[in-house]
Amino acid sequence: MSSDATSYQAGVLIIGDEILSGRTQDVNLSFLGKRLHELGIRLVQARILPDQEDIIANDVVAFHQSYDYVFTTGGIGPTHDDITAQSIAKAFAVPLALNQEAKALLQKRVPNGELNPHQLKMAHVPKGATLIENPVTDAPGFCLKNVFVLAGVPKIMQAMFESITPKLQGGEPFHNKTLRCYLGESILAPGLETIQQQYPKVSIGSYPFWGTNTHGASIVLRSQDVAQVEAAAYDVAQLIDSLGAEVLLDG
Amino acid sequence: MSSDATSYQAGVLIIGDEILSGRTQDVNLSFLGKRLHELGIRLVQARILPDQEDIIANDVVAFHQSYDYVFTTGGIGPTHDDITAQSIAKAFAVPLALNQEAKALLQKRVPNGELNPHQLKMAHVPKGATLIENPVTDAPGFCLKNVFVLAGVPKIMQAMFESITPKLQGGEPFHNKTLRCYLGESILAPGLETIQQQYPKVSIGSYPFWGTNTHGASIVLRSQDVAQVEAAAYDVAQLIDSLGAEVLLDG
Repeated sequence: MSSDATSYQAGVLIIGDEILSGRTQDVNLSFLGKRLHELGIRLVQARILPDQEDIIANDVVAFHQSYDYVFTTGGIGPTHDDITAQSIAKAFAVPLALNQEAKALLQKRVPNGELNPHQLKMAHVPKGATLIENPVTDAPGFCLKNVFVLAGVPKIMQAMFESITPKLQGGEPFHNKTLRCYLGESILAPGLETIQQQYPKVSIGSYPFWGTNTHGASIVLRSQDVAQVEAAAYDVAQLIDSLGAEVLLDG
Repeated sequence: MSSDATSYQAGVLIIGDEILSGRTQDVNLSFLGKRLHELGIRLVQARILPDQEDIIANDVVAFHQSYDYVFTTGGIGPTHDDITAQSIAKAFAVPLALNQEAKALLQKRVPNGELNPHQLKMAHVPKGATLIENPVTDAPGFCLKNVFVLAGVPKIMQAMFESITPKLQGGEPFHNKTLRCYLGESILAPGLETIQQQYPKVSIGSYPFWGTNTHGASIVLRSQDVAQVEAAAYDVAQLIDSLGAEVLLDG
């Protein structure tokens, strides 16, 4: 794990055929991106993976080695297509083991506490993992080393994430500022490039938008250094003004 | 490229810091997933990448070698953060070159046809690339080998994608069938596993849902063999019926 407070990094693995087939619109990535940046952790990349053990295991290993934190979503339910736990076990070459605490949680949900083999599957986690609480449906996620295994259902995933935030060490939160204007990107481009060079610690993005008979650009400034964001934003506002357009603030 | 008509595969690279920071909710992946499956091309995985040349170039090479088709979205505009073209050039170790056709298209958009350097940047594509038409704003995408470089703005990306579909050779379209019921996944799991074993060519997914005081599961069946989808769906319907619940068809 990095000791530089400004450089905590994360990778996200979104697991599920239903995302790749276009059946389900993923919304977990944008939630995690937003929350991680608020916690001062940069989400460096994300991958959307099929329900395929070897692909998941390989990418878990790669992300485990590359980033301070890895988050997975999806594939921890009771059905045959839920293979995240076994894939993580494979990644770290450990067996799946029955977790008594998870078993007890699941037993509270069923008549007489009798779990069928598929319910019992949800109580198995890779050896050495600790549980992540699921306040919505009780079936827990788990954490092994720097890998946090969360549910795929957004409401459950979000609750699980909030429950682990005390364990996540981050740097300064990322600060954002967005300025919009009704100027084409090509007009703004030369000035923006100069400003980007002047503020190397600020990530400056330009995103075009179109309305009825109008078009313009949103300029997004992002950094862990709030003073630099404000200074660069001032220069962007000056640029827009010098090009004869109005600056619209946006969040 | 694969000669087996049932095994055309694709990878998608979504390029842009704004997706990873959670500022922008990506909708391009679900569009591409849906359309590719309709064209008989399986989307095997997708990656969301930051605006970072080395990461993009590495993944373009990896996907180029692994899949029949690679699609990228984002990063082809005029501003400093648009680095997709140079990243693709790096991936294939070719220079960027001015494309006269692209230049002519862009010149039609500006007074006196005078392009500033940042507009001219959009007319530069990796050597050997062919253009992909952009009917919305004229700034073209391009194709190099099996890599199709599309815009990030959904409306433009979709138009570009439709213009290249005649070039994409796929297999049988993927057929989907979804059955919903108000049964928990754990109840369905044993029977679903048996059905999955009986129909190895059908991908069977189970996705829980929750409503007010209700919960249930959507069972999604998918295959390029429509008869197998129908046969497996019949068995799933029988399973749901045998467990005392009603089968709800969903598309």
